[in-house]
Amino acid sequence: MNSKYKTIKLKKGKQSTLEDLVSIEEPLEMIVRYKKNNEWIDNSISITMRTPKNDEDLITGLLFCEGIINQISDIKKIELMGEKVGKYDLQNKIRVILGNSENLDTKHLKRNFLTNSSCGVCGKTSMDSLEIICKTKINKDIPKIKTDLITKIPDLLRQSQSEFSKTGGIHASSLFSKDGKALVIKEDVGRHNALDKVIGHALKNSIFDTKNQFIACSGRLSFELVQKTLMANIGLLMGVGAPTSLAIDLAKRFDITLIGFVKSDSFNIYCGESRILK
Amino acid sequence: MNSKYKTIKLKKGKQSTLEDLVSIEEPLEMIVRYKKNNEWIDNSISITMRTPKNDEDLITGLLFCEGIINQISDIKKIELMGEKVGKYDLQNKIRVILGNSENLDTKHLKRNFLTNSSCGVCGKTSMDSLEIICKTKINKDIPKIKTDLITKIPDLLRQSQSEFSKTGGIHASSLFSKDGKALVIKEDVGRHNALDKVIGHALKNSIFDTKNQFIACSGRLSFELVQKTLMANIGLLMGVGAPTSLAIDLAKRFDITLIGFVKSDSFNIYCGESRILK
Repeated sequence: MNSKYKTIKLKKGKQSTLEDLVSIEEPLEMIVRYKKNNEWIDNSISITMRTPKNDEDLITGLLFCEGIINQISDIKKIELMGEKVGKYDLQNKIRVILGNSENLDTKHLKRNFLTNSSCGVCGKTSMDSLEIICKTKINKDIPKIKTDLITKIPDLLRQSQSEFSKTGGIHASSLFSKDGKALVIKEDVGRHNALDKVIGHALKNSIFDTKNQFIACSGRLSFELVQKTLMANIGLLMGVGAPTSLAIDLAKRFDITLIGFVKSDSFNIYCGESRILK
Repeated sequence: MNSKYKTIKLKKGKQSTLEDLVSIEEPLEMIVRYKKNNEWIDNSISITMRTPKNDEDLITGLLFCEGIINQISDIKKIELMGEKVGKYDLQNKIRVILGNSENLDTKHLKRNFLTNSSCGVCGKTSMDSLEIICKTKINKDIPKIKTDLITKIPDLLRQSQSEFSKTGGIHASSLFSKDGKALVIKEDVGRHNALDKVIGHALKNSIFDTKNQFIACSGRLSFELVQKTLMANIGLLMGVGAPTSLAIDLAKRFDITLIGFVKSDSFNIYCGESRILK
């Protein structure tokens, strides 16, 4: 989703006026409604700045990655709320009504979202709790993929990134099949939102077949992106940018494949090199 | 701050083993201690993933940009807390003790940090509250700067970015004098943290002379970066990347200069073109 803005471009001293396409950034308040002791409770868990569209995918993916829901059937209903506001006439609140939530750990809910969408959760503690959550489902069948395919990913990503080509200012995440087909691609001004949208969409539409899939991102690889990849039970994450220290540490701890600085003729493997086929 | 990681590089089919320098990402829990009805209260306001070092600058800048403190003397003391943990032997908690805090709006404190460091606060409401905060101090003397200088900024930024040249994975923000001297430059894995560090450092060391300064960032220009620029009373923000819609809207509302896509031979002006000297 983008919008036209009048811009003055100065190039080599020459001035021109453009209609520049700009990626839309708007706040979204996310609310979780659950039943506790027979009473409905609305909990505002986060406000994130996102590119509108796919808001249902976004909140579904976020709740799944934070361990608030375990499968799509945990959600009873999702509703956009509030009056339409602003110049794009959007509803900027969304509420997920959970089905069976009597056992929901609401302390966990609060703790997770003290930190928010873009900061991931606190290092060591978070790694421990991930271990508990992921232990039962951790992917032992991580796909092996070929060097040739990896170096094609930046081009494949760019080709599917319809918004980036227009605005130059948006992140993309994509779920790929191990033979290089882009199954889901989502874009957002926030890199974490783009991946949440991919995961939410794949969950809703039963697209996951995690033994045969990997995730690719347009930017840098933070701790949080590795965390989301793990929660989705995907064993391979690659990105066009650099990883952070904590992203590498987390990938190593769970022994998933982590590849950074992917270019058309080279890439760096930070973890899981035995799964790269030359 | 960076760390060495063993990496396998595959380039044109040839494999080599590298010692790759990687930007460190570690969580920092930020606590504000204030007195209310003669009792000390500790409020954990946010956990952010940051590149360690300059933690005092980071929390000082963040509190200033959120309107929790108005000047450096509002802070009585800053202390790193907790045991040293993790492989880098760091304290990952920091506490600011506020001086005179009987009048602190604690509701405001909580609301601000529901949204966090990377999402800014909720659009419309936030613009209104910024208007209240900024009305008394909004900068009417925004510096005029020359086209020549603007196109030099990416190079000047890059030259001062010591970490980026090593790791390729870190954002930078810088406070420049209007004649192009980099007065403060800070790097962080989070773009918002880099700007908080710049603002915190400039405040602590009385470097601000806002009529004669501007801010430049290495990446994209989000709503939040414009918000922080406004709170610091700086009237010109430029970035190497694209602005978002809300970043432009906010710059227009306060009539500050906003320049994006800065390259060595061109740039786009989204607001404040009369202040660019050809």
